Amino acid sequence: MRAAFYISDGTAITSEVFGHALLSLFPIEFEHFTIPFVETEQHALEVIEQIKRAYEKTGERPLVFYTMVNLDIGRIISHSVGINYKFLDQFVAPLEKVIGVPSKPEKHRTHSMHEKTYDIRIEAVNYALANDDGSNLKDYQEADIILVGVSRSGKTPTSLYLALQYGIKAANYPFTEDDMGDILKLPPILRRFKNKLFGLTIGADRLQEIRSERRANSRYASIKQCRMELREVENLYRKEMIPFLNSTSFSVEEISAKILATTGLQRRKY
Amino acid sequence: MRAAFYISDGTAITSEVFGHALLSLFPIEFEHFTIPFVETEQHALEVIEQIKRAYEKTGERPLVFYTMVNLDIGRIISHSVGINYKFLDQFVAPLEKVIGVPSKPEKHRTHSMHEKTYDIRIEAVNYALANDDGSNLKDYQEADIILVGVSRSGKTPTSLYLALQYGIKAANYPFTEDDMGDILKLPPILRRFKNKLFGLTIGADRLQEIRSERRANSRYASIKQCRMELREVENLYRKEMIPFLNSTSFSVEEISAKILATTGLQRRKY
Repeated sequence: MRAAFYISDGTAITSEVFGHALLSLFPIEFEHFTIPFVETEQHALEVIEQIKRAYEKTGERPLVFYTMVNLDIGRIISHSVGINYKFLDQFVAPLEKVIGVPSKPEKHRTHSMHEKTYDIRIEAVNYALANDDGSNLKDYQEADIILVGVSRSGKTPTSLYLALQYGIKAANYPFTEDDMGDILKLPPILRRFKNKLFGLTIGADRLQEIRSERRANSRYASIKQCRMELREVENLYRKEMIPFLNSTSFSVEEISAKILATTGLQRRKY
Repeated sequence: MRAAFYISDGTAITSEVFGHALLSLFPIEFEHFTIPFVETEQHALEVIEQIKRAYEKTGERPLVFYTMVNLDIGRIISHSVGINYKFLDQFVAPLEKVIGVPSKPEKHRTHSMHEKTYDIRIEAVNYALANDDGSNLKDYQEADIILVGVSRSGKTPTSLYLALQYGIKAANYPFTEDDMGDILKLPPILRRFKNKLFGLTIGADRLQEIRSERRANSRYASIKQCRMELREVENLYRKEMIPFLNSTSFSVEEISAKILATTGLQRRKY
Protein backbone atom coordinates (compact mmCIF):
# COMPACT_ATOMS: atom_id res chain seq x y z
CA MET A 1 0.00 0.00 0.00
CA ARG A 2 1.41 3.38 -1.00
CA ALA A 3 2.17 5.74 1.89
CA ALA A 4 0.79 9.30 2.12
CA PHE A 5 2.45 11.82 4.43
CA TYR A 6 0.86 14.99 5.81
CA ILE A 7 3.49 17.33 7.17
CA SER A 8 3.55 20.83 8.61
CA ASP A 9 5.20 23.13 11.12
CA GLY A 10 1.67 23.53 12.55
CA THR A 11 -1.04 20.93 13.26
CA ALA A 12 -0.93 19.55 9.68
CA ILE A 13 -4.74 19.64 9.64
CA THR A 14 -4.77 21.60 6.37
CA SER A 15 -2.42 19.08 4.73
CA GLU A 16 -4.55 16.21 5.97
CA VAL A 17 -7.84 17.65 4.78
CA PHE A 18 -6.44 18.57 1.38
CA GLY A 19 -4.52 15.32 0.86
CA HIS A 20 -7.38 13.19 2.09
CA ALA A 21 -9.89 14.90 -0.22
CA LEU A 22 -7.57 14.47 -3.18
CA LEU A 23 -6.77 10.82 -2.49
CA SER A 24 -10.42 10.00 -1.86
CA LEU A 25 -10.95 10.63 -5.59
CA PHE A 26 -9.02 7.44 -6.24
CA PRO A 27 -10.50 3.98 -5.75
CA ILE A 28 -7.48 2.63 -3.86
CA GLU A 29 -6.25 2.63 -0.27
CA PHE A 30 -3.26 4.47 1.14
CA GLU A 31 -1.40 4.21 4.42
CA HIS A 32 -1.55 7.61 6.13
CA PHE A 33 1.10 9.31 8.28
CA THR A 34 0.62 12.74 9.85
CA ILE A 35 3.69 14.55 11.14
CA PRO A 36 2.80 17.89 12.79
CA PHE A 37 5.08 20.52 14.35
CA VAL A 38 8.17 19.95 12.21
CA GLU A 39 9.86 23.08 13.47
CA THR A 40 13.59 22.30 13.21
CA GLU A 41 15.91 21.23 10.41
CA GLN A 42 16.90 18.21 12.51
CA HIS A 43 13.27 17.12 12.68
CA ALA A 44 12.84 17.67 8.93
CA LEU A 45 15.87 15.45 8.25
CA GLU A 46 14.33 12.71 10.38
CA VAL A 47 11.09 13.09 8.45
CA ILE A 48 12.72 12.63 5.05
CA GLU A 49 14.46 9.53 6.41
CA GLN A 50 11.04 8.21 7.42
CA ILE A 51 9.72 8.92 3.92
CA LYS A 52 12.71 7.06 2.49
CA ARG A 53 12.03 4.05 4.69
CA ALA A 54 8.38 4.00 3.56
CA TYR A 55 9.59 4.03 -0.05
CA GLU A 56 12.01 1.16 0.57
CA LYS A 57 9.30 -0.84 2.32
CA THR A 58 6.53 -0.37 -0.26
CA GLY A 59 8.54 0.08 -3.45
CA GLU A 60 6.27 3.01 -4.31
CA ARG A 61 7.22 6.64 -3.90
CA PRO A 62 5.19 8.10 -1.02
CA LEU A 63 2.92 11.07 -1.65
CA VAL A 64 3.92 14.01 0.53
CA PHE A 65 1.48 16.86 1.19
CA TYR A 66 2.97 19.69 3.19
CA THR A 67 2.66 23.30 4.26
CA MET A 68 5.61 25.05 5.84
CA VAL A 69 6.13 28.66 6.81
CA ASN A 70 9.87 28.30 7.36
CA LEU A 71 11.48 28.16 3.92
CA ASP A 72 14.66 26.35 5.00
CA ILE A 73 12.71 23.55 6.60
CA GLY A 74 10.36 23.41 3.61
CA ARG A 75 13.38 23.03 1.32
CA ILE A 76 14.53 19.95 3.21
CA ILE A 77 11.12 18.30 2.83
CA SER A 78 11.11 19.17 -0.88
CA HIS A 79 14.18 16.96 -1.29
CA SER A 80 12.49 13.83 0.06
CA VAL A 81 12.33 10.79 -2.23
CA GLY A 82 8.54 11.11 -2.19
CA ILE A 83 6.37 12.99 -4.64
CA ASN A 84 6.20 16.29 -2.86
CA TYR A 85 3.24 18.65 -3.00
CA LYS A 86 3.64 21.99 -1.26
CA PHE A 87 0.13 22.42 -2.47
CA LEU A 88 -0.72 25.96 -1.32
CA ASP A 89 2.28 27.46 -3.13
CA GLN A 90 1.05 27.35 -6.70
CA PHE A 91 -2.00 29.39 -5.70
CA VAL A 92 -0.09 32.10 -3.88
CA ALA A 93 1.50 33.98 -6.80
CA PRO A 94 -1.70 34.21 -8.89
CA LEU A 95 -3.63 35.24 -5.79
CA GLU A 96 -1.10 37.97 -4.99
CA LYS A 97 -1.77 39.38 -8.45
CA VAL A 98 -5.54 39.24 -8.00
CA ILE A 99 -5.52 40.75 -4.54
CA GLY A 100 -2.70 43.16 -5.19
CA VAL A 101 -1.11 42.48 -1.80
CA PRO A 102 1.96 40.33 -1.18
CA SER A 103 1.45 37.25 0.96
CA LYS A 104 2.93 37.29 4.44
CA PRO A 105 3.04 33.78 5.83
CA GLU A 106 3.12 33.55 9.60
CA LYS A 107 3.07 30.52 11.81
CA HIS A 108 -0.06 29.32 13.55
CA ARG A 109 -2.43 31.43 11.48
CA THR A 110 -4.95 28.58 11.33
CA HIS A 111 -6.05 26.03 13.93
CA SER A 112 -4.37 27.97 16.72
CA MET A 113 -5.65 29.65 19.83
CA HIS A 114 -4.51 32.95 18.39
CA GLU A 115 -7.57 32.94 16.20
CA LYS A 116 -9.89 35.60 17.53
CA THR A 117 -12.74 33.20 17.99
CA TYR A 118 -10.91 30.59 20.05
CA ASP A 119 -12.34 31.48 23.44
CA ILE A 120 -15.83 31.64 21.94
CA ARG A 121 -15.48 28.05 20.76
CA ILE A 122 -14.40 26.80 24.17
CA GLU A 123 -17.23 28.69 25.84
CA ALA A 124 -19.63 27.09 23.34
CA VAL A 125 -18.30 23.62 24.23
CA ASN A 126 -18.87 24.30 27.91
CA TYR A 127 -22.35 25.57 27.08
CA ALA A 128 -23.19 22.45 25.04
CA LEU A 129 -22.06 20.20 27.89
CA ALA A 130 -23.99 22.15 30.52
CA ASN A 131 -27.09 22.10 28.31
CA ASP A 132 -26.90 18.55 27.05
CA ASP A 133 -29.95 16.33 27.20
CA GLY A 134 -32.33 18.91 28.65
CA SER A 135 -30.19 19.23 31.75
CA ASN A 136 -30.31 22.97 32.23
CA LEU A 137 -33.44 24.69 31.00
CA LYS A 138 -32.63 28.05 32.52
CA ASP A 139 -29.86 28.99 30.06
CA TYR A 140 -31.94 28.77 26.88
CA GLN A 141 -31.91 32.56 26.61
CA GLU A 142 -28.24 32.23 25.73
CA ALA A 143 -28.65 29.47 23.14
CA ASP A 144 -28.04 30.12 19.45
CA ILE A 145 -30.03 27.02 18.67
CA ILE A 146 -31.90 24.30 20.60
CA LEU A 147 -31.85 20.87 19.01
CA VAL A 148 -34.89 18.73 19.81
CA GLY A 149 -35.73 15.11 19.07
CA VAL A 150 -36.22 11.68 20.59
CA SER A 151 -33.46 9.97 22.56
CA ARG A 152 -30.57 8.86 20.29
CA SER A 153 -31.49 10.85 17.20
CA GLY A 154 -28.08 12.56 17.01
CA LYS A 155 -28.60 15.69 19.12
CA THR A 156 -25.58 15.44 21.42
CA PRO A 157 -22.78 14.83 18.88
CA THR A 158 -24.27 17.54 16.67
CA SER A 159 -24.36 20.06 19.55
CA LEU A 160 -20.72 19.35 20.33
CA TYR A 161 -19.66 19.61 16.71
CA LEU A 162 -21.47 22.95 16.27
CA ALA A 163 -19.67 24.22 19.37
CA LEU A 164 -16.18 22.96 18.61
CA GLN A 165 -16.10 23.78 14.92
CA TYR A 166 -18.27 26.85 14.69
CA GLY A 167 -18.46 28.37 18.18
CA ILE A 168 -22.25 28.02 18.09
CA LYS A 169 -24.03 27.58 21.43
CA ALA A 170 -26.31 24.62 20.91
CA ALA A 171 -28.51 23.28 23.70
CA ASN A 172 -30.36 20.03 23.20
CA TYR A 173 -33.63 18.77 24.61
CA PRO A 174 -34.91 15.18 24.35
CA PHE A 175 -38.61 14.49 23.99
CA THR A 176 -39.39 11.69 26.41
CA GLU A 177 -42.48 9.74 27.24
CA ASP A 178 -43.25 12.28 29.94
CA ASP A 179 -43.72 14.85 27.20
CA MET A 180 -45.79 12.50 25.07
CA GLY A 181 -48.95 11.76 27.04
CA ASP A 182 -51.64 11.09 24.45
CA ILE A 183 -50.30 13.56 21.93
CA LEU A 184 -46.88 15.19 22.08
CA LYS A 185 -47.24 18.87 22.89
CA LEU A 186 -44.50 21.45 22.90
CA PRO A 187 -43.33 21.93 26.50
CA PRO A 188 -43.81 25.54 27.68
CA ILE A 189 -40.07 26.10 28.14
CA LEU A 190 -39.53 25.28 24.46
CA ARG A 191 -42.47 27.33 23.29
CA ARG A 192 -40.85 30.42 24.77
CA PHE A 193 -37.84 29.86 22.49
CA LYS A 194 -39.66 28.45 19.52
CA ASN A 195 -37.67 30.46 16.99
CA LYS A 196 -34.50 28.69 18.19
CA LEU A 197 -35.80 25.14 17.79
CA PHE A 198 -34.44 22.74 15.23
CA GLY A 199 -35.77 19.18 15.07
CA LEU A 200 -33.94 15.97 14.32
CA THR A 201 -35.64 12.80 13.30
CA ILE A 202 -34.29 9.43 12.18
CA GLY A 203 -35.49 6.24 10.50
CA ALA A 204 -37.23 3.86 12.93
CA ASP A 205 -35.03 0.90 11.97
CA ARG A 206 -31.84 2.87 12.52
CA LEU A 207 -33.15 4.19 15.84
CA GLN A 208 -33.99 0.68 16.98
CA GLU A 209 -30.48 -0.46 16.06
CA ILE A 210 -28.83 2.38 18.01
CA ARG A 211 -31.07 1.97 21.05
CA SER A 212 -30.57 -1.80 21.05
CA GLU A 213 -26.83 -1.29 21.46
CA ARG A 214 -27.63 0.63 24.63
CA ARG A 215 -30.47 -1.47 26.06
CA ALA A 216 -31.10 -4.64 24.11
CA ASN A 217 -34.62 -6.09 24.22
CA SER A 218 -36.03 -3.17 26.19
CA ARG A 219 -39.32 -1.47 25.44
CA TYR A 220 -37.18 1.64 24.80
CA ALA A 221 -35.46 -0.16 21.92
CA SER A 222 -38.55 -1.89 20.48
CA ILE A 223 -39.51 -1.01 16.93
CA LYS A 224 -43.05 -0.25 18.10
CA GLN A 225 -41.83 2.32 20.64
CA CYS A 226 -39.37 3.87 18.15
CA ARG A 227 -42.09 4.21 15.52
CA MET A 228 -44.54 5.75 17.98
CA GLU A 229 -42.06 8.33 19.27
CA LEU A 230 -40.89 9.30 15.78
CA ARG A 231 -44.46 9.68 14.54
CA GLU A 232 -45.25 11.95 17.48
CA VAL A 233 -42.21 14.23 17.02
CA GLU A 234 -42.60 14.46 13.27
CA ASN A 235 -46.25 15.42 13.70
CA LEU A 236 -45.19 18.04 16.21
CA TYR A 237 -42.54 19.50 13.88
CA ARG A 238 -45.10 19.83 11.10
CA LYS A 239 -47.84 21.22 13.29
CA GLU A 240 -45.56 23.78 14.94
CA MET A 241 -43.61 24.50 11.75
CA ILE A 242 -40.30 23.59 13.38
CA PRO A 243 -37.61 23.09 10.73
CA PHE A 244 -36.28 19.55 10.87
CA LEU A 245 -33.94 17.07 9.29
CA ASN A 246 -33.83 13.29 9.02
CA SER A 247 -30.36 12.35 10.27
CA THR A 248 -30.48 8.67 9.28
CA SER A 249 -27.86 8.77 6.54
CA PHE A 250 -25.92 11.89 7.52
CA SER A 251 -22.74 12.43 9.50
CA VAL A 252 -22.47 15.12 12.20
CA GLU A 253 -20.51 17.18 9.69
CA GLU A 254 -23.35 16.92 7.18
CA ILE A 255 -26.09 17.51 9.75
CA SER A 256 -24.27 20.59 11.04
CA ALA A 257 -23.68 21.99 7.56
CA LYS A 258 -27.34 21.44 6.68
CA ILE A 259 -28.50 23.12 9.88
CA LEU A 260 -26.39 26.19 9.11
CA ALA A 261 -27.58 26.28 5.51
CA THR A 262 -31.27 25.86 6.49
CA THR A 263 -31.44 28.24 9.41
CA GLY A 264 -29.00 30.89 8.22
CA LEU A 265 -27.40 30.68 11.67
CA GLN A 266 -24.13 32.57 11.67
CA ARG A 267 -21.06 30.68 12.69
CA ARG A 268 -18.51 32.44 14.86
CA LYS A 269 -15.52 30.70 13.40
CA TYR A 270 -14.13 30.16 9.93
CA MET B 1 -14.04 43.71 2.07
CA ARG B 2 -13.57 41.09 -0.65
CA ALA B 3 -15.89 38.08 -0.44
CA ALA B 4 -14.66 34.48 -0.39
CA PHE B 5 -17.04 31.64 -1.27
CA TYR B 6 -16.64 27.99 -0.31
CA ILE B 7 -18.91 25.81 -2.39
CA SER B 8 -19.52 22.08 -2.80
CA ASP B 9 -22.09 19.40 -3.46
CA GLY B 10 -21.01 18.00 -0.08
CA THR B 11 -20.34 19.74 3.25
CA ALA B 12 -17.84 22.20 1.69
CA ILE B 13 -15.48 21.50 4.60
CA THR B 14 -12.60 20.72 2.24
CA SER B 15 -13.15 23.99 0.34
CA GLU B 16 -13.29 25.92 3.60
CA VAL B 17 -10.14 24.42 5.05
CA PHE B 18 -8.20 24.89 1.82
CA GLY B 19 -9.47 28.40 1.11
CA HIS B 20 -9.05 29.52 4.67
CA ALA B 21 -5.47 28.26 4.84
CA LEU B 22 -4.63 30.00 1.58
CA LEU B 23 -6.25 33.31 2.51
CA SER B 24 -4.65 33.27 5.96
CA LEU B 25 -1.33 33.79 4.16
CA PHE B 26 -2.51 37.31 3.33
CA PRO B 27 -2.55 40.13 5.86
CA ILE B 28 -6.08 41.26 4.98
CA GLU B 29 -9.62 40.30 5.96
CA PHE B 30 -12.23 38.63 3.80
CA GLU B 31 -15.94 38.10 4.17
CA HIS B 32 -16.63 34.37 4.13
CA PHE B 33 -19.63 32.53 2.68
CA THR B 34 -20.02 28.75 2.79
CA ILE B 35 -22.58 27.14 0.51
CA PRO B 36 -22.79 23.36 0.99
CA PHE B 37 -24.96 20.77 -0.79
CA VAL B 38 -25.25 22.49 -4.15
CA GLU B 39 -26.76 19.46 -5.82
CA THR B 40 -28.94 20.87 -8.61
CA GLU B 41 -28.35 23.16 -11.57
CA GLN B 42 -31.05 25.46 -10.23
CA HIS B 43 -29.17 25.83 -6.96
CA ALA B 44 -25.90 26.45 -8.83
CA LEU B 45 -27.57 29.22 -10.83
CA GLU B 46 -28.75 30.87 -7.59
CA VAL B 47 -25.20 30.59 -6.24
CA ILE B 48 -23.62 32.37 -9.20
CA GLU B 49 -26.24 35.10 -8.80
CA GLN B 50 -25.17 35.46 -5.16
CA ILE B 51 -21.53 35.71 -6.25
CA LYS B 52 -22.53 38.38 -8.76
CA ARG B 53 -24.32 40.39 -6.06
CA ALA B 54 -21.24 40.18 -3.82
CA TYR B 55 -19.16 41.51 -6.71
CA GLU B 56 -21.57 44.39 -7.33
CA LYS B 57 -21.62 45.24 -3.64
CA THR B 58 -17.87 45.18 -3.04
CA GLY B 59 -16.53 46.12 -6.47
CA GLU B 60 -14.00 43.29 -6.10
CA ARG B 61 -14.28 39.94 -7.78
CA PRO B 62 -15.07 37.33 -5.13
CA LEU B 63 -12.74 34.37 -4.65
CA VAL B 64 -14.54 31.10 -5.21
CA PHE B 65 -13.12 27.83 -3.90
CA TYR B 66 -15.11 24.79 -4.88
CA THR B 67 -15.18 21.03 -5.23
CA MET B 68 -17.91 19.37 -7.24
CA VAL B 69 -18.40 15.77 -8.29
CA ASN B 70 -21.16 16.55 -10.80
CA LEU B 71 -19.46 18.04 -13.86
CA ASP B 72 -22.52 19.91 -15.17
CA ILE B 73 -23.05 21.71 -11.87
CA GLY B 74 -19.33 22.41 -11.62
CA ARG B 75 -19.42 23.97 -15.07
CA ILE B 76 -22.09 26.44 -13.97
CA ILE B 77 -20.00 27.55 -10.98
CA SER B 78 -16.96 27.91 -13.25
CA HIS B 79 -18.89 30.62 -15.14
CA SER B 80 -19.40 32.83 -12.09
CA VAL B 81 -18.01 36.38 -12.21
CA GLY B 82 -15.70 35.45 -9.34
CA ILE B 83 -12.18 34.13 -9.57
CA ASN B 84 -12.92 30.44 -9.56
CA TYR B 85 -10.64 27.80 -8.09
CA LYS B 86 -11.70 24.20 -8.56
CA PHE B 87 -8.55 23.60 -6.62
CA LEU B 88 -8.36 19.80 -6.48
CA ASP B 89 -8.52 19.45 -10.26
CA GLN B 90 -5.03 20.51 -11.19
CA PHE B 91 -3.61 17.81 -8.94
CA VAL B 92 -5.73 15.01 -10.33
CA ALA B 93 -4.12 14.44 -13.76
CA PRO B 94 -0.51 14.39 -12.46
CA LEU B 95 -1.58 12.11 -9.61
CA GLU B 96 -3.29 9.72 -12.02
CA LYS B 97 0.05 9.41 -13.82
CA VAL B 98 1.96 8.78 -10.60
CA ILE B 99 -0.49 6.25 -9.24
CA GLY B 100 -1.31 4.67 -12.57
CA VAL B 101 -5.02 4.47 -11.76
CA PRO B 102 -7.74 6.78 -13.12
CA SER B 103 -9.59 8.89 -10.58
CA LYS B 104 -13.18 7.95 -9.87
CA PRO B 105 -14.91 10.81 -8.06
CA GLU B 106 -17.93 9.82 -6.02
CA LYS B 107 -20.14 11.91 -3.82
CA HIS B 108 -19.79 11.96 -0.07
CA ARG B 109 -16.40 10.28 -0.02
CA THR B 110 -15.22 12.58 2.77
CA HIS B 111 -16.99 13.93 5.84
CA SER B 112 -19.88 11.53 5.43
CA MET B 113 -21.26 8.73 7.55
CA HIS B 114 -20.33 6.30 4.82
CA GLU B 115 -16.76 6.51 6.00
CA LYS B 116 -15.94 3.22 7.65
CA THR B 117 -14.95 4.84 10.91
CA TYR B 118 -18.08 6.92 11.44
CA ASP B 119 -19.71 4.74 14.10
CA ILE B 120 -16.40 4.52 15.94
CA ARG B 121 -16.26 8.31 16.20
CA ILE B 122 -19.79 8.55 17.61
CA GLU B 123 -19.04 5.77 20.07
CA ALA B 124 -15.91 7.68 21.13
CA VAL B 125 -17.97 10.85 21.70
CA ASN B 126 -20.37 8.93 23.92
CA TYR B 127 -17.40 7.45 25.75
CA ALA B 128 -15.82 10.87 26.31
CA LEU B 129 -19.08 12.23 27.71
CA ALA B 130 -19.64 9.25 30.00
CA ASN B 131 -16.04 9.48 31.22
CA ASP B 132 -15.76 13.25 31.55
CA ASP B 133 -14.40 14.75 34.73
CA GLY B 134 -13.65 11.50 36.53
CA SER B 135 -17.30 10.54 36.41
CA ASN B 136 -16.99 6.87 35.55
CA LEU B 137 -13.86 5.17 36.77
CA LYS B 138 -14.98 1.66 35.88
CA ASP B 139 -14.59 2.04 32.09
CA TYR B 140 -10.89 2.95 32.06
CA GLN B 141 -10.08 -0.48 30.66
CA GLU B 142 -11.67 0.72 27.42
CA ALA B 143 -9.86 4.07 27.26
CA ASP B 144 -7.27 4.74 24.58
CA ILE B 145 -5.94 7.57 26.72
CA ILE B 146 -6.76 9.16 30.09
CA LEU B 147 -6.13 12.89 30.32
CA VAL B 148 -5.26 14.12 33.79
CA GLY B 149 -4.76 17.61 35.21
CA VAL B 150 -6.22 20.22 37.54
CA SER B 151 -9.69 21.64 37.00
CA ARG B 152 -9.87 23.86 33.87
CA SER B 153 -6.60 22.86 32.29
CA GLY B 154 -8.24 21.89 28.99
CA LYS B 155 -9.03 18.21 29.52
CA THR B 156 -12.70 18.18 28.49
CA PRO B 157 -12.54 20.03 25.15
CA THR B 158 -9.46 17.98 24.24
CA SER B 159 -11.23 14.68 25.05
CA LEU B 160 -14.17 15.69 22.87
CA TYR B 161 -11.95 16.80 20.01
CA LEU B 162 -9.96 13.53 20.09
CA ALA B 163 -13.26 11.63 19.95
CA LEU B 164 -15.00 13.64 17.23
CA GLN B 165 -12.04 14.08 14.92
CA TYR B 166 -10.04 10.93 15.47
CA GLY B 167 -12.38 8.36 17.03
CA ILE B 168 -10.07 8.09 20.04
CA LYS B 169 -11.65 7.12 23.36
CA ALA B 170 -10.35 9.67 25.83
CA ALA B 171 -11.40 9.66 29.48
CA ASN B 172 -10.42 12.55 31.68
CA TYR B 173 -9.73 12.73 35.39
CA PRO B 174 -9.35 15.95 37.40
CA PHE B 175 -6.94 16.12 40.30
CA THR B 176 -8.80 17.82 43.13
CA GLU B 177 -7.89 18.87 46.62
CA ASP B 178 -9.11 15.50 47.85
CA ASP B 179 -6.26 13.91 45.91
CA MET B 180 -3.75 16.47 47.12
CA GLY B 181 -3.49 16.00 50.89
CA ASP B 182 0.04 16.97 51.79
CA ILE B 183 1.61 15.75 48.59
CA LEU B 184 -0.34 14.74 45.49
CA LYS B 185 -0.15 11.00 45.00
CA LEU B 186 -1.38 9.03 42.04
CA PRO B 187 -4.81 7.59 42.93
CA PRO B 188 -4.84 3.76 42.77
CA ILE B 189 -7.38 3.70 39.92
CA LEU B 190 -4.98 5.75 37.78
CA ARG B 191 -1.93 3.74 38.79
CA ARG B 192 -3.58 0.64 37.31
CA PHE B 193 -3.73 2.39 33.93
CA LYS B 194 -0.54 4.38 34.21
CA ASN B 195 0.55 3.65 30.64
CA LYS B 196 -2.59 5.41 29.39
CA LEU B 197 -2.08 8.66 31.34
CA PHE B 198 -1.29 11.96 29.68
CA GLY B 199 -0.95 15.09 31.79
CA LEU B 200 -2.03 18.62 30.99
CA THR B 201 -0.72 21.65 32.78
CA ILE B 202 -1.22 25.37 32.21
CA GLY B 203 0.28 28.70 33.27
CA ALA B 204 -0.96 29.84 36.70
CA ASP B 205 -2.03 33.28 35.42
CA ARG B 206 -4.06 31.77 32.61
CA LEU B 207 -5.62 29.24 34.98
CA GLN B 208 -6.58 32.01 37.39
CA GLU B 209 -8.20 33.93 34.53
CA ILE B 210 -10.23 30.93 33.38
CA ARG B 211 -11.29 29.96 36.89
CA SER B 212 -12.23 33.55 37.70
CA GLU B 213 -14.74 33.56 34.87
CA ARG B 214 -16.38 30.61 36.57
CA ARG B 215 -16.13 31.63 40.23
CA ALA B 216 -14.78 35.12 40.70
CA ASN B 217 -12.94 35.88 43.95
CA SER B 218 -13.14 32.28 45.15
CA ARG B 219 -10.28 30.43 46.79
CA TYR B 220 -10.56 28.05 43.78
CA ALA B 221 -9.67 30.95 41.47
CA SER B 222 -6.97 32.53 43.65
CA ILE B 223 -3.49 32.71 42.21
CA LYS B 224 -2.11 31.04 45.32
CA GLN B 225 -4.40 28.03 44.93
CA CYS B 226 -3.72 27.79 41.18
CA ARG B 227 0.05 27.87 41.77
CA MET B 228 -0.13 25.25 44.51
CA GLU B 229 -2.22 22.83 42.43
CA LEU B 230 -0.05 23.25 39.35
CA ARG B 231 3.15 22.72 41.34
CA GLU B 232 1.72 19.52 42.77
CA VAL B 233 0.60 18.05 39.44
CA GLU B 234 3.82 18.97 37.65
CA ASN B 235 5.84 17.35 40.42
CA LEU B 236 3.68 14.27 40.10
CA TYR B 237 4.11 14.09 36.30
CA ARG B 238 7.88 14.28 36.70
CA LYS B 239 8.08 11.81 39.55
CA GLU B 240 5.83 9.27 37.84
CA MET B 241 7.26 9.95 34.37
CA ILE B 242 3.83 10.79 32.96
CA PRO B 243 4.17 12.56 29.59
CA PHE B 244 2.67 16.04 29.80
CA LEU B 245 2.07 19.25 27.93
CA ASN B 246 1.59 22.87 28.91
CA SER B 247 -1.64 23.91 27.20
CA THR B 248 -1.39 27.65 27.93
CA SER B 249 -0.86 28.87 24.40
CA PHE B 250 -2.27 25.96 22.42
CA SER B 251 -5.66 25.32 20.84
CA VAL B 252 -7.48 21.99 21.22
CA GLU B 253 -6.39 21.21 17.67
CA GLU B 254 -2.75 21.81 18.61
CA ILE B 255 -2.99 19.96 21.94
CA SER B 256 -4.60 16.98 20.22
CA ALA B 257 -2.01 16.90 17.42
CA LYS B 258 0.80 17.11 19.98
CA ILE B 259 -0.70 14.30 22.06
CA LEU B 260 -0.90 12.04 19.01
CA ALA B 261 2.65 12.94 17.97
CA THR B 262 4.06 12.40 21.50
CA THR B 263 2.28 9.20 22.43
CA GLY B 264 2.16 7.53 19.04
CA LEU B 265 -1.53 6.85 19.72
CA GLN B 266 -3.21 5.60 16.56
CA ARG B 267 -6.17 7.56 15.32
CA ARG B 268 -9.12 5.60 13.95
CA LYS B 269 -10.09 8.19 11.38
CA TYR B 270 -8.33 10.04 8.63
